[in-house]
Amino acid sequence: MAKSKFEYVRDFEADDTCLPNCWIVVRLDGRNFHRFSEQHEFKKPNDDRALHLMTKCAQTVMEELEDIAIAYGQSDEYSFVFKKKSRWFKRRASKFMTHVVSQFASSYVFYWKDYFKDQQLLYPPGFDARIVLYPSNQNLKDYLSWRQADCHINNLYNTVFWMLVQRSGLTPVQAQDRLQGTLAGDKNEILFSEFNINYNNEPLMYRKGTVLVWQKVNEVTTKKIKLPKEAEEKEVEVTRTRTKVVPLHCDIIGDQFWEEYPEILAEDS
Amino acid sequence: MAKSKFEYVRDFEADDTCLPNCWIVVRLDGRNFHRFSEQHEFKKPNDDRALHLMTKCAQTVMEELEDIAIAYGQSDEYSFVFKKKSRWFKRRASKFMTHVVSQFASSYVFYWKDYFKDQQLLYPPGFDARIVLYPSNQNLKDYLSWRQADCHINNLYNTVFWMLVQRSGLTPVQAQDRLQGTLAGDKNEILFSEFNINYNNEPLMYRKGTVLVWQKVNEVTTKKIKLPKEAEEKEVEVTRTRTKVVPLHCDIIGDQFWEEYPEILAEDS
Amino acid sequence: MAKSKFEYVRDFEADDTCLPNCWIVVRLDGRNFHRFSEQHEFKKPNDDRALHLMTKCAQTVMEELEDIAIAYGQSDEYSFVFKKKSRWFKRRASKFMTHVVSQFASSYVFYWKDYFKDQQLLYPPGFDARIVLYPSNQNLKDYLSWRQADCHINNLYNTVFWMLVQRSGLTPVQAQDRLQGTLAGDKNEILFSEFNINYNNEPLMYRKGTVLVWQKVNEVTTKKIKLPKEAEEKEVEVTRTRTKVVPLHCDIIGDQFWEEYPEILAEDS
Amino acid sequence: MAKSKFEYVRDFEADDTCLPNCWIVVRLDGRNFHRFSEQHEFKKPNDDRALHLMTKCAQTVMEELEDIAIAYGQSDEYSFVFKKKSRWFKRRASKFMTHVVSQFASSYVFYWKDYFKDQQLLYPPGFDARIVLYPSNQNLKDYLSWRQADCHINNLYNTVFWMLVQRSGLTPVQAQDRLQGTLAGDKNEILFSEFNINYNNEPLMYRKGTVLVWQKVNEVTTKKIKLPKEAEEKEVEVTRTRTKVVPLHCDIIGDQFWEEYPEILAEDS
Repeated sequence: MAKSKFEYVRDFEADDTCLPNCWIVVRLDGRNFHRFSEQHEFKKPNDDRALHLMTKCAQTVMEELEDIAIAYGQSDEYSFVFKKKSRWFKRRASKFMTHVVSQFASSYVFYWKDYFKDQQLLYPPGFDARIVLYPSNQNLKDYLSWRQADCHINNLYNTVFWMLVQRSGLTPVQAQDRLQGTLAGDKNEILFSEFNINYNNEPLMYRKGTVLVWQKVNEVTTKKIKLPKEAEEKEVEVTRTRTKVVPLHCDIIGDQFWEEYPEILAEDS
Repeated sequence: MAKSKFEYVRDFEADDTCLPNCWIVVRLDGRNFHRFSEQHEFKKPNDDRALHLMTKCAQTVMEELEDIAIAYGQSDEYSFVFKKKSRWFKRRASKFMTHVVSQFASSYVFYWKDYFKDQQLLYPPGFDARIVLYPSNQNLKDYLSWRQADCHINNLYNTVFWMLVQRSGLTPVQAQDRLQGTLAGDKNEILFSEFNINYNNEPLMYRKGTVLVWQKVNEVTTKKIKLPKEAEEKEVEVTRTRTKVVPLHCDIIGDQFWEEYPEILAEDS
Repeated sequence: MAKSKFEYVRDFEADDTCLPNCWIVVRLDGRNFHRFSEQHEFKKPNDDRALHLMTKCAQTVMEELEDIAIAYGQSDEYSFVFKKKSRWFKRRASKFMTHVVSQFASSYVFYWKDYFKDQQLLYPPGFDARIVLYPSNQNLKDYLSWRQADCHINNLYNTVFWMLVQRSGLTPVQAQDRLQGTLAGDKNEILFSEFNINYNNEPLMYRKGTVLVWQKVNEVTTKKIKLPKEAEEKEVEVTRTRTKVVPLHCDIIGDQFWEEYPEILAEDS
Repeated sequence: MAKSKFEYVRDFEADDTCLPNCWIVVRLDGRNFHRFSEQHEFKKPNDDRALHLMTKCAQTVMEELEDIAIAYGQSDEYSFVFKKKSRWFKRRASKFMTHVVSQFASSYVFYWKDYFKDQQLLYPPGFDARIVLYPSNQNLKDYLSWRQADCHINNLYNTVFWMLVQRSGLTPVQAQDRLQGTLAGDKNEILFSEFNINYNNEPLMYRKGTVLVWQKVNEVTTKKIKLPKEAEEKEVEVTRTRTKVVPLHCDIIGDQFWEEYPEILAEDS
């Protein structure tokens, strides 16, 4: 059979092993989600259905794939952090990227109707992903801080922008001009004085994004058992400790989060 | 704002530009599709619904992304060939891989019901992908030949194997033992003498897989027009030439295919 | 022994295999050769001793290492082209780069006195090198053309510049100002009208650089032999064909060179 | 000028930036030094001239290049450790490798006669180098421990081997057979009982290799000065503190060395 004659082409595959002992971050972004959000009538500046769907997909990724220690998401992006010591797929970068992004994409369509109900999905959405290595814990924390700071900046801007458009009747261009050059303080002031909104009271999910961590949770189930010496079945409560992916909407820039969840950065994690 | 303090983490992103003037192949595989096909009751050895769904997804990928010259699929895998001269996303490997795999994965769920009807999709499937560069046209042809030779070998084996199981009542282990060490000729003989099957009459899609190429097609539509001097509208036929992705089930190992489609390998394509 | 405990560090070595079926070019440059040439009183604009030493080192590299098909040098740089099919050191990029640059550097000191005679070498010079892959023959020819075009541009500039300094007594800054914005034609004109120099009569080595190719040469040696039937030894001339590295100073941008040396680009070379 | 037409070939150069915040180790090895050492009559098992020349070259590398924090050498190899935070040549791997190996190679020839006196250098030697990244301090210490453990194993073996050959008159093959399967204890015992050698009294340089570190040293020089009010010149001693590369032959596997030289691993080094 001619197989052997062609098989030399396998030698053209390059090795893309990730450097050992580094955190492996895969960050995923929606493709053309500006257009996608308009066509699917996302509420502006934040659509709870869309944000919850993103988080559902990210949870699926964490549960289906291996060695993800923490994930962080905001808007149409999600970052997945694989453990430093992970040996999953021999640390091949292409495996990490494509498994994350394909699981996320198929989940997005699969779970769409659970969140968007009657709002039909018009076409299958695309995502891209990249991979970045971080050698130290501080580098990793700074990466996540960078994304959360980005969330804050964008959400503050979008909150004011859409108020100006939706409530003050400005065109998008006018709103953009109005915000040109303003600092965070200015934007807070506009929100407060013109729209009576205290930005700090906006929902945490909008301001902080979503952190996914593994947590031990106690699940109580009832079970029927029959003891040897008794004639009848008996109902007992069984408490089982399971590790589940749990969403949080908290600050991860300061130290408090990392002190509460020391296992995330633990060397032997 | 603290943004700048963290932004140094962007410098950790590595450049993954593909070498210019090489064919870029992205090959995608289903994750755990053995289990997936059992849970979704795929017909063995070939399930037309599954194969047509794969091809529908691959067509979507070719139409949504840019610069794909040809694609080839069989079983739960598909290879996409980007043009040598493609400058899409600055030839960044991660972009090619993740856009292909995410578009494919979301399409798989999106179009599932069009092919599987009442058969419910139980969970969102995963895929992985890798990227390989081929410097010469001969290398690329050999790559595609390798995949088609693989299709032939696997399909011949699977055809006999499932006959032995489904018709002769052998257990999978018994069928495997029976085929141990047999050559192609032996398998053809078993098919013919025991099951009266001439392998060469099996459907081309099973034996050759699916090739996706761009083809000019003429679309005839009727249109109502009103000429200035006439009072009434008039129906006219309008013929429009469009370029569409068309599936073929032909040999791509020999020269004939490449002579029929010279534009695929054309330098300036 | 503690060896095994530490040996995990070997896993941190990354694979740097070059893509098969591509030309591998290693280009080497002198480190701080501006300063080096002043301290060793190189003749300006071209020092024959320095150019011949560079070529001697490059010949040594070609003879000591494997699979180098052609080399091209000018000024303080040299490019070495390894055959497309080379399997030397499993095509590991670091091996190619470091073997070339170290053999060149040690040869530079070793052969220095053969070219520079009484001019003492003051300190051991440094070099750097980079590696580039070229998939097609055209790409490779264009690479070499790029270097030869660069040689021409620099040499024309330097020839005029040093004439202005050495003969017209301009300071370097004045000479630079004078040449600011001039085209090739202008420079030729200055050379001709002010210094009576026809640039095209300048030595080819300066204008074209040096090409190193393998050539069959006949070496005639005399040997004493004693024929069985004769009493005395007899002197005979023996002609042996050897393949040697030969320097040329010719154009490699046009087709003629490649037609004369078809074996360089031959597929099975 | 045709330059622009060819310049596209520069786009084929791949980016080889080293991941930030990692130790960059360049390890260099002699090429065919088995043959080289025989042809230059190196004393076996250790030739002081050769070892001191290696160290002289390594010192030159450390002084000429930038950001090398520590180096370690044994036999015909040397490892150079660049600081985690180094931004030298934008952390391009090829620059690190080729500058190290070329400076080392040219120094080897340049300083040869200072160590080998009448022993002529017969031909220019070659070296190769590789580059490895280590994310954590522990990884780096383990790397250096690996090399020092390797030095110990090889030197113990070579010491016994050459005793058996030189003193007991065994052939190399007989000596090899004799040592087959022996443990460290066995080799120590042979040395002691047959040759009255206590391995622990062998020179540290042979057993531990050579560590190069930066050290502040006080240099006292005498200088003639003439004070304004005095008629005669006067000799004064001037003490100047300089940072120099100093060779040590000590254990670097245990903690003591790292406690004595904390600045090597210091974050801001």
